[in-house]
Formats: sequence, structure tokens, C-alpha cells
Amino acid sequence: MYTTIKKEELKNLVIKVLTKHGETQENAEILYDLMYEDEISGKSSHGFYRFPGFMQSLNPDNKKDAVEVTVNGNVISVDGKKNIGVIPIKKAVDKIIELSETQNIIVAGVNNYENNTGAIGYYARKLAKAGLISIITVSSEACVVPHGGMDLMLGTNPVAMGFPCGDNPVITDVTTAAMPWGRIAVLGKAGQPVPDGVIMDKDGNPSNDPDDLIKRGGKQLPLAGHKGYALGVAMEILGGIFVGGKGGKHAVPGSDAAFIVAMKKDAFIPAEEYEAKMAAFVDEVKNSTKAPGVDEIRIPGMLGPDYFEMAESDEITILTTIYNDILKYA
Amino acid sequence: MYTTIKKEELKNLVIKVLTKHGETQENAEILYDLMYEDEISGKSSHGFYRFPGFMQSLNPDNKKDAVEVTVNGNVISVDGKKNIGVIPIKKAVDKIIELSETQNIIVAGVNNYENNTGAIGYYARKLAKAGLISIITVSSEACVVPHGGMDLMLGTNPVAMGFPCGDNPVITDVTTAAMPWGRIAVLGKAGQPVPDGVIMDKDGNPSNDPDDLIKRGGKQLPLAGHKGYALGVAMEILGGIFVGGKGGKHAVPGSDAAFIVAMKKDAFIPAEEYEAKMAAFVDEVKNSTKAPGVDEIRIPGMLGPDYFEMAESDEITILTTIYNDILKYA
Repeated sequence: MYTTIKKEELKNLVIKVLTKHGETQENAEILYDLMYEDEISGKSSHGFYRFPGFMQSLNPDNKKDAVEVTVNGNVISVDGKKNIGVIPIKKAVDKIIELSETQNIIVAGVNNYENNTGAIGYYARKLAKAGLISIITVSSEACVVPHGGMDLMLGTNPVAMGFPCGDNPVITDVTTAAMPWGRIAVLGKAGQPVPDGVIMDKDGNPSNDPDDLIKRGGKQLPLAGHKGYALGVAMEILGGIFVGGKGGKHAVPGSDAAFIVAMKKDAFIPAEEYEAKMAAFVDEVKNSTKAPGVDEIRIPGMLGPDYFEMAESDEITILTTIYNDILKYA
Repeated sequence: MYTTIKKEELKNLVIKVLTKHGETQENAEILYDLMYEDEISGKSSHGFYRFPGFMQSLNPDNKKDAVEVTVNGNVISVDGKKNIGVIPIKKAVDKIIELSETQNIIVAGVNNYENNTGAIGYYARKLAKAGLISIITVSSEACVVPHGGMDLMLGTNPVAMGFPCGDNPVITDVTTAAMPWGRIAVLGKAGQPVPDGVIMDKDGNPSNDPDDLIKRGGKQLPLAGHKGYALGVAMEILGGIFVGGKGGKHAVPGSDAAFIVAMKKDAFIPAEEYEAKMAAFVDEVKNSTKAPGVDEIRIPGMLGPDYFEMAESDEITILTTIYNDILKYA
């Protein structure tokens, strides 16, 4: 069951509820925008579905201090003051865009936040739309074993990268775990096996049975063995230790630290040349020969016509259960 | 068969031969150091084995112009002037280390070089030893298909990242192709299949037969399907288009462009705190519970006692065939 309502009505509702529960108007708008963009990007599991999760961090009787942004040349340090991760990271993104008027390259470290950051491709897209190439990673609680190990030492450690490309940036957003927990759970419910190299059972043996992970204390493996392990370690350091987060087995539930580096697209070549080469590259890959049974060669993170149609509309359609979840807090 | 000689003798020989064939003393020393370090790091396929390959770019009657390094604040542009890739990239690394006395974060774009860059973890290690965290990628000729495609559009696109850690940095060096060509060829010679997801046959069908790639016009697939494809696209743009290289199907044989971003380890937290947290993280991962049949949980890129023993010695042992290859050019 789906509910279709005016976007303005949904936005007013979400912001009213968030502010009633102790969030500032500005921060409520930041949270709304993340959920809205993820919702219409076809990732409804990352859209308004997050609302109840965000509510767990809010308490009208114990409001959070404001996020603290410190700038030292081209280094931005953001103290999240225990706010929901989305808020300090969005403030880092805004400050990066501001500094990019005078700096070619900027780095931001964000820490001391809680709850969740949302899918980090969202921030890479904001930066790309402002003409900035970016590399972003966030720490997350340990839920993946090292290659050859059995203890949880690494987060799922996503890395997002964004590249300006006309009005539809190229965005990669990849986790360094072999498969997200949620997808493994879905396979389990469907009684289907997971592929090789995704999980181990509780004794450290290779397994294809999702229930070994979900019900019997098994563990998630890094993406593609030692390669994903190496990438995961790198992200653990960048988005954890380097920026003042915890990292490794000390990482807290959810996420508490993030790393962003951003570079102007014209740092080395004129902007027009960069854009022309990007357009040609995307075009060539998209229109290259397809393998049998493949309808479309996709460019990572490029939004399809559905997104632009939904963005144009003044209405939005969301799952009724999710809409009701929001109403519950009103 | 192996030949053991004094390091000094080998170094003098290599430099004498390279300079005789038109390389400057300074550049010959750069090439020697790369081969030497890779040799004693246990990657002999990346060590002095490269010598004949480098010789193909040298011509005593047609010496290369000097590499041109331009600095604009914290942006370094290097014109390789068709020198062997190792030389302009090493010069970018040296300039980064010099600038790091006054800058927290530096980006370098290197292009217009030829031949080969060596394994790029080498440069990440140099930067890490100078207290810099780095992310490095290089473009390379198209030899990997996009996810769902059949045309060669992406390089093997390695990404290396380096993290200072006492006197033994953490270095990740991962290609975004599913498996290196050389390893697939070795499996073919041994009559063994390749795992799923590594190659397709010439008609675009999944294959496990190495000869479909080596002898019958098949293609290499990206690492772990759409994830490695997304990473490969990102590296193609960073190490190609962004820095003024060619990128995509236009990439030249070998490599012609590289990207480096480097950040001081104390950009966000004091150096001592960074080092203490790194030491603890490495220690915890190394000493975590091993899976059945695993002897050691390795930390990416950390050198073992063999390296330090070989580094201390005044002698070096290399394959006699490789030694003879060098003598041939003397």
C-alpha cells in the first residue's frame, strides 16, 4: 500500500515532528532533504524509512548542542556534539563548498556524532553538483572479520566518490563488506544460499547458509577476500583513526566519524575540458557493446528519468506504513 | 639459479647501463631504487625483472627532456615529457614531501609519461615514511569491460593507499580488475579453471576456462561485479580525465597519467595520538582470532622480517636470468 501526498505537506509534517521532538528548524531541514533525495533516487530503504531511527536520537527535554565547525586553512574539523551524523556531515559539505571559492582542495574530518549518516553517496552528489570531485568514507561499528580472521574488527566501511558530469554526476558508493547484512537476511528468509565468500559460520568455516550468520553466530567476510580487506582497513583508518574517531573493534554502534576530501574539477585542466571528457567517457561506456541478456550498461550513480520525473512533480508516493510511522510521532 | 652480489656493485651496474643508454644519473637512481625496493619486498616480479622493459623507452641518441614540475599553492602538476612513468611520479612524491612542511594537504596530477609506473604502493610507502597519508591511482590501457559490457573500457586501475605506522607503514595496493592477466595465464598453463566472475568468453558468456581469455579473445571482468566496476570507473576518472590523462578506451598502452592526494597524519589529531591509535589497531587485528587453517592475519602492506634482513645486508640475491638481462645491455 502506498500513499501519495503533496511534497510540501510531507515536508511540513516531517519538519514539524522533528522540531517538536527537539531538533532545530535548520537541522530538521537537513534530515528531510537526505530522506527525500534518497527516497526519489529509488533507494526507498534509505529514504523516509529512516525516520523512526532518527527519532531515537531526539529528546525534547535534552536538546543537543550545536555542531562546531573549525576551519584551519583548507582543513575543516567538525565536532558533531552527539547530533545525528547527517547534520555535522552536511555542515562539513556546506563549509567545503564555501571554501572552494578560494581553495582547490579541502579536507574535512567529522567526529563525535551518533546514530546514522545515511548513504554517503548523498554527500558526494552535493559536492559534485558544486563542481567538486570527492572521496568520502565513514566509520561504522565492527561487523566484518579481517581476511583470515574470526573476530569483528572492521566496519562495513563504505567509500563514496563523486565526479561532476553535467547535471547528472557519476557517484560510486561501495561497501567493503562482501554483502550487506540486510541482503543476506533476505536470502535467508527466501531459503536461498549466499554465494561463496560472503559469510563464515561461527567456527570460521566457509558457509553458504544465511542462517549461519543470522541465527547461529557466523560472521560477515570482506569483499573479494584480501582485496576488500585491504580497502576496508584503509577506510577504517581514514574515516576512523585519522579524523579522531575510534576505529577497529572500538567503533561505536552506528557511525561516529567521517572523512571527506574534495577537489575542484578544474584543479588540473580547464572546467570545459574536464566536462567534455567526462561526457565523452560516459557516452562511450554507456553505448559500448552489451553482454548477452544485458539491457543497459549503467554508469555508477547516474540518475535515470524516474528521478527527474519525481523531482519535477509536486507530489510524492511513499509506503503507507512509513507514512504512518511518521504520523505516530506527530 | 640465483646470483648473489654486493648491492653496491649491482647499483653501480644498473646506473651505469641506464646512463649509457641515455638516462640522467638522477633518473637512473630513481629507477634503481624502485626496482631495488620491490625486489627486497618479496615482489621479485616487480623488481629488477622490469629492467628490460624500462630499456625499451631509452635511446642514447634521443634523450628525453627533463620532467617539468609546476606548483600552484598545494596543487602540483607534473608534465612527464614522455619519460618513464616512475620518474615524474617520484618527482611528484618528492615535491609533495617538500610542500608538506607548510601544507596539510597536497594534490598532484602527473601526465604525459610513458612505459610503466611500477607497483604504486612504492610511492604510498615513500609518502607514509614522510608522515603522509596518501591515495594514489594511475591510468592504464583499457583491458577490463564495464559491468554488463563486452568492450574494453577500463584499465586495471590500481588504487594504493598508505598510512604511516611507526617504521612499517600500512599500504594497500588493490587493482579493480577481478584478477591480474598474469595470474589467469598461469592458471591456464596449469590447466586449472579460474573462479566465477573473473573472465567472459569472446561472446560475452561467463567462463571458467583461462584459455577463453588467453587464446580465444575473451575479456577480463571487474572485481566483484558492479562494485569493482564502480571503483574502476572512479579510478579511471581520478587518474585519467581529472589530471589531464586520456582515460577510458582512449588510454594508451602502459600508463600515461597518475593522481596523488597526500595529507599530514596530524591534520586532525596530534601525531603521537595518531601513531598510538595505529599501533593499537594493527596490534589488535594481527592478534585477533584466526580462522581454521590460517597461520597469520596479515596487515596490508606491512613488511615482514625478511624485508628488514635483506635491507640490512650489503648483498642481494636475484634471479641469474635477470642479472644476465642487465649485463646484456652493459
